Amino acid sequence: MGATLDITGKTRVFGCIADPIDHVRAPMVFNPIFESRGIDAVMVPVHVPPDRLEAAVAGLKAQRNFGGMAVTVPHKLRLMALCDEVGRQGRLVGAVNAVKFDAERRMIGDNFDGAGFVAGMRAEGHEVNGRAVLQLGAGGAGRAIAFALADAGVGRLVIHNRTRSKAEELAAAVSAAYPKIPVAVGEAAPDGCEIVVNTTSAGLHDTDPLPIEEGLLTSDLLISEIIMIPERTRLLERALEKGCKVHYGRHMLDHQITLIGEFLGCLGG
Amino acid sequence: MGATLDITGKTRVFGCIADPIDHVRAPMVFNPIFESRGIDAVMVPVHVPPDRLEAAVAGLKAQRNFGGMAVTVPHKLRLMALCDEVGRQGRLVGAVNAVKFDAERRMIGDNFDGAGFVAGMRAEGHEVNGRAVLQLGAGGAGRAIAFALADAGVGRLVIHNRTRSKAEELAAAVSAAYPKIPVAVGEAAPDGCEIVVNTTSAGLHDTDPLPIEEGLLTSDLLISEIIMIPERTRLLERALEKGCKVHYGRHMLDHQITLIGEFLGCLGG
Repeated sequence: MGATLDITGKTRVFGCIADPIDHVRAPMVFNPIFESRGIDAVMVPVHVPPDRLEAAVAGLKAQRNFGGMAVTVPHKLRLMALCDEVGRQGRLVGAVNAVKFDAERRMIGDNFDGAGFVAGMRAEGHEVNGRAVLQLGAGGAGRAIAFALADAGVGRLVIHNRTRSKAEELAAAVSAAYPKIPVAVGEAAPDGCEIVVNTTSAGLHDTDPLPIEEGLLTSDLLISEIIMIPERTRLLERALEKGCKVHYGRHMLDHQITLIGEFLGCLGG
Repeated sequence: MGATLDITGKTRVFGCIADPIDHVRAPMVFNPIFESRGIDAVMVPVHVPPDRLEAAVAGLKAQRNFGGMAVTVPHKLRLMALCDEVGRQGRLVGAVNAVKFDAERRMIGDNFDGAGFVAGMRAEGHEVNGRAVLQLGAGGAGRAIAFALADAGVGRLVIHNRTRSKAEELAAAVSAAYPKIPVAVGEAAPDGCEIVVNTTSAGLHDTDPLPIEEGLLTSDLLISEIIMIPERTRLLERALEKGCKVHYGRHMLDHQITLIGEFLGCLGG
């Protein structure tokens, strides 16, 4: 089931839109799921340059058997503007990472980056509800995670960013959307927080500085990453040495896939 | 190779456009070829209603990794009008059954219905060059076959159609395009022709009348069909009983697939 050998006129088509396209991973994640579960669907790469996005979307709306797509760089922001409807996290983040087409071919988008992170934490036994969290970074991924942490009901959220104004901006936006959640801008120090989430890119390379001082890593902390490669960043290495619990970056993607699959309606009943 | 499990960001995407879509066969023909030859390509169904064709084409032009598509009902005529360039047989027939996109994303179309029929005949050892052919029918398929027979250099082409004016119109068009080929309108009688080609739909159902009188089937004739199901039409049954050589409808599709695959550039080197 699900092999290209089994693609017929009845097979639902899904996409993964990006530019460049060579590196996209979603087809390699979704197609094996379709195959193993006997779902009559296929996900193909959709290579669209930014200046052709409107035309591509209009074309996909015209393709009745095209169910939706995972959205990656550089289309997350512009595609949100083209949606007919955007879910709350998508609107808050200002970017979508999945869009689907309904029976009237309206394009509905949402963002599952943050929800994927939270779901991954929960699946590993790390409930965030009621906990105090220090978030390092206020970039694109940080934005999604901050709103999702607030949505999950963290007890307190402290956001640190090298450029402080970006942290202030994000903290204000999260506060406005979730007025009951205490949100503050702070230093790169746990200062009473139980969970530290690194959403910066520091750790992608071995030569990157740690996003938080080594001396601040105490064994009571849970140190969480969203970087997938390397799986064990320098931050996680140090945290393990200090006896901290750690949470790996791969869980965010794994759980995002499930959420996106449910959103697209392509993972069966 | 080629299974959905192997679809990556680098996989070339091809389509088969139709409305309705459920019945299309091209993906079931092309994908196993991709798979068996290790070609990194996939063909998916593209369901587009007639009133959305322009938008769909503009969208496919915007998808850089979309190579082209097989074209079926009801898009063969309208899609020709949207092409940036059309091959000679496509222009003559007035319809395309395959379109591809070049490096500048220009859409180039052509029609391989007739060429597929001629190639199928040749592969079965039935050369048409120099031979006198009676063609029954002047509809869509008949139109494509008449031009292809002329292109292949038949010695003489006689076209019979129940509505005579349609036969006259087609004969005039073939004559204008291939002035060296003798083309005439005639009765449903071999009258010196060596090959009879049935391009009418008579034979799809058991209750259909024969497209040529049984008494006219003599053992020196080659009787040729384009109907695929049933494989052995009543006409071919009678022809076999009379000792005629026969040519089955399936060869036209088989050879068209090869020609379309070469045109789309998806069958490797």
